[in-house]
Amino acid sequence: MDESPPRLRRPAFAGLVGASQLLGLASVVLTGVWMGHYRGGFAWDGSAQQFNLHPLCMVLGLVFLQGDAILVYRVFRNEAKRTVKVLHGVIHLLALIISVIGFVAVFDFHKAAGIPDMYSLHSWCGMATLVLFCLQWVLGLSFFLFPVASAWLRAAYLPVHVFCGLVLLVMAVGTSLLGIAEKLLFSIASTYSQFAPEGVLANVLGVLLVCFGVIQCYLVTKDEYRRPPNPEEESLSVHFKTLTEGASPATP
Amino acid sequence: MDESPPRLRRPAFAGLVGASQLLGLASVVLTGVWMGHYRGGFAWDGSAQQFNLHPLCMVLGLVFLQGDAILVYRVFRNEAKRTVKVLHGVIHLLALIISVIGFVAVFDFHKAAGIPDMYSLHSWCGMATLVLFCLQWVLGLSFFLFPVASAWLRAAYLPVHVFCGLVLLVMAVGTSLLGIAEKLLFSIASTYSQFAPEGVLANVLGVLLVCFGVIQCYLVTKDEYRRPPNPEEESLSVHFKTLTEGASPATP
Repeated sequence: MDESPPRLRRPAFAGLVGASQLLGLASVVLTGVWMGHYRGGFAWDGSAQQFNLHPLCMVLGLVFLQGDAILVYRVFRNEAKRTVKVLHGVIHLLALIISVIGFVAVFDFHKAAGIPDMYSLHSWCGMATLVLFCLQWVLGLSFFLFPVASAWLRAAYLPVHVFCGLVLLVMAVGTSLLGIAEKLLFSIASTYSQFAPEGVLANVLGVLLVCFGVIQCYLVTKDEYRRPPNPEEESLSVHFKTLTEGASPATP
Repeated sequence: MDESPPRLRRPAFAGLVGASQLLGLASVVLTGVWMGHYRGGFAWDGSAQQFNLHPLCMVLGLVFLQGDAILVYRVFRNEAKRTVKVLHGVIHLLALIISVIGFVAVFDFHKAAGIPDMYSLHSWCGMATLVLFCLQWVLGLSFFLFPVASAWLRAAYLPVHVFCGLVLLVMAVGTSLLGIAEKLLFSIASTYSQFAPEGVLANVLGVLLVCFGVIQCYLVTKDEYRRPPNPEEESLSVHFKTLTEGASPATP
């Protein structure tokens, strides 16, 4: 009985994954509409239009793509582990590249406009998130994709990697919310309290980001949605218990 | 072998609990210093001094006390479950009362100063957090302390209750960060970018709150730190697997 993979209530799982994708895409589109329609569009010339690329890149890279990179282990739970690992690493790399472009956009804009860097809570949280994201990606690559670490070390690091991944996703969502609040108070301080459409749109964006983060965390932490154990995972010595109890690990 | 409670690496656990308490207390003290020293102290007369009670109450109630209410299941992991349940409910009630005082403080101040309510992302997130916190407390009380629900329903609700509790703690931390950013941009917009001491202090408060939230989540989600199963828990039908495998649940 224990050899069969855990039963998965497909409709609930598929519904939650679908909802997370809708919320993530809606967040990216809403950020684009906010910056494109209300803030004058996009450019790469040190102007405010260059700044506008910053929120779009961060929501797309550090929130949506990071969330989906984490989710691949649940969505492709019956695919070969190595394939899913590569996909996990590649989506994270894409998220990292887009996030770095977003960071360059805002630092360039600050330089051109003579605005100091790194004074706000948003900037502190954002910098911490990106630096830790890079560290997490490099460590993940070294430990799991090009395994230079021993099986024992990999097994010990795996739960830390998973926990830190979720922390980073939540930090990215939290930092985005701080960015939204800052941008609104810089741009529409006088009309924000009169429920100006731009303010309501940006608030709704914040709510969508929170909902996206909550659903992603739920999908990743719910036991029922975990990948069923397979021989490759067993070789990582993660499932000592199954092996010592004599049960054969399930095939992928 | 499986009958003994999971081994607990006491020094690491104690160190993390100690660190979380230091971070939580430091956050409350720093909020007090910020409002007391930089923002003119406290009063209950509809003035800005009444507003100053809002951040203090929220950090004390919805962050520090809520976090510690969650943590009692780990810290008192070998005490009788019913005692810990009561403590969990009582600390949450205290957190709720203090949070409601914090909410009344800011709505009273807005009314006296003619400032509109509920327009900012901070207010949306804060209201959602408090309403869901109340719902979570009432449901928790009904399901677990005065069990009106069936054992099956309680077992099904337990993981949802735990997940929602952590989401609420993270939402409380995130909303506090939004509040810090808003307050700084309302109060010291002109000097914040020159690294005014008040701004740096408030940013540090934000960082401490994030660290507090991360450690609390780590302590609560790490398998090793979970309560060992006991007969009362077994009666909730949470540990079907142990029972069906014939292993005796460990005594508390």
